Amino acid sequence: MSGSVSTQRAETVVKPALLRALAGERLERPPVWFMRQAGRYLPEYRALRAETSGFISFCLDPERAAEATLQPMRRFAFDAAIVFADILLLPMGLGQKVWFEAGEGPRLGPLPSLEAMQARATEAAQSLTAVAETLTRVRAALEPERALIGFAGAPWTVATYMLEGGSSDRSKARSLAYTDPALVDGLIEVLVEATAHYLAMQVRAGAQVVKLFESWAEGLSEDLFFRLVTAPHMQLVARLRQLGVEVPVIGFPRGAGAMVLDYAAAVPIEGVALDTSAPASLGQIIQKHRTIQGALDPLLLRAGGEALDRRVDRLIEQWGGGPYIFNLGHGVLPDTPPEHVARVVERVTGRVQAP
Amino acid sequence: MSGSVSTQRAETVVKPALLRALAGERLERPPVWFMRQAGRYLPEYRALRAETSGFISFCLDPERAAEATLQPMRRFAFDAAIVFADILLLPMGLGQKVWFEAGEGPRLGPLPSLEAMQARATEAAQSLTAVAETLTRVRAALEPERALIGFAGAPWTVATYMLEGGSSDRSKARSLAYTDPALVDGLIEVLVEATAHYLAMQVRAGAQVVKLFESWAEGLSEDLFFRLVTAPHMQLVARLRQLGVEVPVIGFPRGAGAMVLDYAAAVPIEGVALDTSAPASLGQIIQKHRTIQGALDPLLLRAGGEALDRRVDRLIEQWGGGPYIFNLGHGVLPDTPPEHVARVVERVTGRVQAP
Repeated sequence: MSGSVSTQRAETVVKPALLRALAGERLERPPVWFMRQAGRYLPEYRALRAETSGFISFCLDPERAAEATLQPMRRFAFDAAIVFADILLLPMGLGQKVWFEAGEGPRLGPLPSLEAMQARATEAAQSLTAVAETLTRVRAALEPERALIGFAGAPWTVATYMLEGGSSDRSKARSLAYTDPALVDGLIEVLVEATAHYLAMQVRAGAQVVKLFESWAEGLSEDLFFRLVTAPHMQLVARLRQLGVEVPVIGFPRGAGAMVLDYAAAVPIEGVALDTSAPASLGQIIQKHRTIQGALDPLLLRAGGEALDRRVDRLIEQWGGGPYIFNLGHGVLPDTPPEHVARVVERVTGRVQAP
Repeated sequence: MSGSVSTQRAETVVKPALLRALAGERLERPPVWFMRQAGRYLPEYRALRAETSGFISFCLDPERAAEATLQPMRRFAFDAAIVFADILLLPMGLGQKVWFEAGEGPRLGPLPSLEAMQARATEAAQSLTAVAETLTRVRAALEPERALIGFAGAPWTVATYMLEGGSSDRSKARSLAYTDPALVDGLIEVLVEATAHYLAMQVRAGAQVVKLFESWAEGLSEDLFFRLVTAPHMQLVARLRQLGVEVPVIGFPRGAGAMVLDYAAAVPIEGVALDTSAPASLGQIIQKHRTIQGALDPLLLRAGGEALDRRVDRLIEQWGGGPYIFNLGHGVLPDTPPEHVARVVERVTGRVQAP
């Protein structure tokens, strides 16, 4: 026992704050990182991005993707980096064409047959080794006290794009869940398997935390929410553990509303990311058994001013008493002034500069 | 006391089921009506609508609007009619131009100055006497056991259209709530006053219940939700009571998620309409002090089949134990087969035909 205690003490010295928070520790101040902290609001990102014509080529270029990942880490005292990639890389590994039209959302080609996708589920991640290479490069460059996060789109969210051929209001995908359950449930099953392998690859390459982005949990009835979100997340986490992945998992069921309580109770993850509309009381209930993350309004981050300062203080006041990671409720908006990001990170960490 | 008891008993004979449910009674079976029960999914509506070129002209034509209101009442055993109108009629009364492009959403002209709108708040409803005339015609034609509902858009929802000039993701309006609070709060205040008078006019014309459609409560942080939704609804209900309106009010904060609990606790309304994503437990909590309404998925209504039957039974099972009004979680979709509506209404009421 004394051996394990000393190991634990030695680990504490270098264990990144994000991992300590995800282990349920309440820290002196919450660790902080932002969804889309790498991206268009940074002039150095826009310059880097301009060097490559296609967005997917950019994501699959480990040198540039690693640079994009690291850019905000140089500017701000973020406690974690998140690999620069896109949730729609995985459908490509399953044989569906994906492209981005300039100034528009993603576009996807015809959905391959379920059989064809089933045959590729296990090895789909193998076509995305560039993402693993990005993670390895970032991990090598990042200070040991700053954590590296890998991620994937959650099955339902990725399925909505695959079924609809692009961005949408998800009504076609939700309708299909009623009218063609064999297709939708079969696709979700394929995505659970493919995503588990994809995340396992990211962890082997250096990710210390993985996050599941369920960007489109909103508008689902309780039965569909369990079937399309909660149950697949449970299966995915179980599959990850089977594959030997032991790092903490953060789930982000954006738009789950009150159902995030059932989600947090049912899915054995370490962290639950809350969206902008989560009230204080909801987070406090979840904090009794999970670390929570969230949930500053990206529109307020963009607006700035004293209202922003007051809201940052309020979030720390309402949730800082339990295990908590400071973040936004959604991604940084492209026209956010970088000084506003600096101001919030400084307010949370007390640090003006990146380490 | 015996006098009041006998009055109560006499009233019970003709009191529409919807009003009894809103008074907190638990009935043998829930009353049922559907949001957008009048509209494009009905061939007789499409024929009627084709007689008039502009949508707003149609809404302001009492003869045709009354006919549209009554069409679903002839087909189905709905327990209530809701006046055919649009939530964007009121901005016209405040001096903002509103029009509908064929096949697109609503468009609004430049926002009048706050001062100009303040000057018109009290009498804005007077330009919408056509809606009152529609209500009077419908009430005269409707059986006494079927209730008539008036409605208005809630202040924040109407404000989003007025501020953005049409349909949108509300990010401009939400940003303005941070960057120009004087404008947004001033506009909400104008809308509270104008809406109270508009609803009072509807009640004088025959509406026995009024419903407040807060279609865009989603995506608001807790502080914005209180400021833009809960507080204005509280003020509006208080103003309605000041104006002598005594009929029950149903609030529908669509997308409120977990915050619907705080909303239901704070706003002194008789009914809380739940959206598609409200879990059973949430409704059961609210039923302890309010009548709830909801929340069949309109996509499942469109899809039909045994899954629809099972879900209808499940909703009645989960919420029928308290005061409950059967409805959808959002409006009937235009391509819904009318037979599916008939099937659900029959399943809820046990009646094949309209009375």
